[in-house]
Amino acid sequence: MSAPGCVFCGVVAELWRAERCPGPGAPGQVYRKIADLPTSVAVLGPDQFHRGYSLVIAKRHATELFELPEAESMQYYRDMLVVARAVAAAFRPRKLNYELLGNLVPHLHWHVLPRYADDPNPQHPVWQHPHPPRIPTDAECDETIAAIRRHLGPTSDPIDRGRGSGV
Amino acid sequence: MSAPGCVFCGVVAELWRAERCPGPGAPGQVYRKIADLPTSVAVLGPDQFHRGYSLVIAKRHATELFELPEAESMQYYRDMLVVARAVAAAFRPRKLNYELLGNLVPHLHWHVLPRYADDPNPQHPVWQHPHPPRIPTDAECDETIAAIRRHLGPTSDPIDRGRGSGV
Repeated sequence: MSAPGCVFCGVVAELWRAERCPGPGAPGQVYRKIADLPTSVAVLGPDQFHRGYSLVIAKRHATELFELPEAESMQYYRDMLVVARAVAAAFRPRKLNYELLGNLVPHLHWHVLPRYADDPNPQHPVWQHPHPPRIPTDAECDETIAAIRRHLGPTSDPIDRGRGSGV
Repeated sequence: MSAPGCVFCGVVAELWRAERCPGPGAPGQVYRKIADLPTSVAVLGPDQFHRGYSLVIAKRHATELFELPEAESMQYYRDMLVVARAVAAAFRPRKLNYELLGNLVPHLHWHVLPRYADDPNPQHPVWQHPHPPRIPTDAECDETIAAIRRHLGPTSDPIDRGRGSGV
């Protein structure tokens, strides 16, 4: 299921029993878990310029969506939708952008990007508007994650598995 | 199913019985149909800077993926995968990018963007590398569409419905 040297395989492994782990980006970057989902783990994007920006990282290592077994690809899409719907319900963006790129890290990961009324470049992809990253405090992250979790449906298991409670 | 004034609702309606129609972009832009799919119509992106770039436009007017009835959202994802797989099989890109944005036209449409070994900005989203559009000739479009159609599975109906053959 995992590929040697893949940073996202490492993230998935670390978040199996942890709530956070180092991100693969700038030194000190932290990935915080939002939820364990059937085929993926959802984490808060470390740059919260777009509040609620989330990544939905596939548990299995694959590069293209059609490389997953069909049922798993469908479930992975469903996982992403659960997160997208929760982000939309929590923060009421004007629009969501859904992107699976993998140009830099070729391990399946969805970007769920909320676009707000005050977006500086609302009619274009976020990548056309370079900005300094907005790194939130721990407290802000906790609040954002809690807001998203409140809107996750019963398919998610955001707490028990992460904490290894065994309950 | 459609929204008054929505340009993509217009495209879907026009392509029901036609192989091409005016695109919503620059004057003279043409959308050429690749396939009618269960919940969508696939068209060749008018800018073929990334050869095989395709749009998969939902037949029903909706803004967010989770606004579709669940079965329809799943099928719409499946439609996009059919196109993505065919583009990959036809042109063997290094990677595909899958993006549903809707910032400019808020009617569900997937961008299926192949990235090649000679991509000028391979590790970043296509939107970070402005380029003059590459408008192919009719013959090139026909060839590209034929190449994609050869790899579409049995779920597509690229010819009969478009031509209104009634067979």
